[in-house]
Amino acid sequence: MKKTLSDKVINRLTLYHSILTDYIDKNIEYISSPNIAELLHIDNTQVRKDIALLKYKGKCKVGYKAKELKLLIEDTLKFKTVKTAFIVGAGNLGSALANYDNFEAYGFKISALFDNSPLKIGMKVNDKDIFNLKELPFLTEKYDVKIAILTVPRAFAQEVTNFLVDAGIKYIWNFTPCVLNVPNGIQIWNENLIGNFLQFTVNHK
Amino acid sequence: MKKTLSDKVINRLTLYHSILTDYIDKNIEYISSPNIAELLHIDNTQVRKDIALLKYKGKCKVGYKAKELKLLIEDTLKFKTVKTAFIVGAGNLGSALANYDNFEAYGFKISALFDNSPLKIGMKVNDKDIFNLKELPFLTEKYDVKIAILTVPRAFAQEVTNFLVDAGIKYIWNFTPCVLNVPNGIQIWNENLIGNFLQFTVNHK
Repeated sequence: MKKTLSDKVINRLTLYHSILTDYIDKNIEYISSPNIAELLHIDNTQVRKDIALLKYKGKCKVGYKAKELKLLIEDTLKFKTVKTAFIVGAGNLGSALANYDNFEAYGFKISALFDNSPLKIGMKVNDKDIFNLKELPFLTEKYDVKIAILTVPRAFAQEVTNFLVDAGIKYIWNFTPCVLNVPNGIQIWNENLIGNFLQFTVNHK
Repeated sequence: MKKTLSDKVINRLTLYHSILTDYIDKNIEYISSPNIAELLHIDNTQVRKDIALLKYKGKCKVGYKAKELKLLIEDTLKFKTVKTAFIVGAGNLGSALANYDNFEAYGFKISALFDNSPLKIGMKVNDKDIFNLKELPFLTEKYDVKIAILTVPRAFAQEVTNFLVDAGIKYIWNFTPCVLNVPNGIQIWNENLIGNFLQFTVNHK
């Protein structure tokens, strides 16, 4: 894939993928763009445009082959490429993400959690170990992990980020409500939950 | 505000708001667009364009008054308008969201959680009651709640959604990995965590 897909296209493709999974589970062979559009309350033209980006053509009157389209989305979004990540902060949110089995379907593998609470270190969440945060630099190097999911309390967000950067982490998926200061070359994805939701309430209410 | 702000602008404005909160906490009076741009690793012109949408002008060489700009963003994004919501599903993710105190700063109030597990009903998370899901229709009407945050397991997502719609819920913030089928007039915001993150790995790796 040479051309970069826009954020919105990628987001919609993952939703189409989710719909296709349901169709295949129900043994439905074909899906049409209006089927998808109706479920997502979006325009049919949009669905067709997105799928055209994958260079996939449906059959007249029957639509797309669900299995083929699903595989094509997986290929485009690199679901088969395993992306290993650590969760930093084993509180409610970190544990929720460690339990989110769906990540694996997308090639996203959580290999361990880290915390500094003696009550949590040594425990497991969804069969994944919670290690002492101090061990992160060693394990990052040992397993060549480049992605960290940051779910620590706000007050420690920057300090822990500095620690992650020093340990060799290159991608931080930031679930804290802080804007983190990092050197060039480190990629931060601000999850910014509230920002996502405000898009919804500001424009609809 | 007559013009609808795009999702991306709203998302960036909440990040600017977070930065402004930090500046004000540190008693820094002025902030410049390069200050903001550098922290977010985005272009300075983008920051100025976004702030221009708020009809706010900075002072030459000193920048924007942090407190004024913060209030203006709060006003534009309606942070003072209280939006009450129920969390449906009191597992790890539901509990994490109930503990996410930052929501309140954005006018977003979680008034209760719901579950069907006898082990959870009657407990509290962050001082909020966990009620039996059966009581939701009554409490939705009593407190005129229109927003539900859906954090139930995948297998129950559609069934619980139908129940929420029948109970009078109009906005569903969907954290499940399912595409939900709802009648027209019901707004679904698919949080689609993995879609958000894929935007990051597909385009950067």
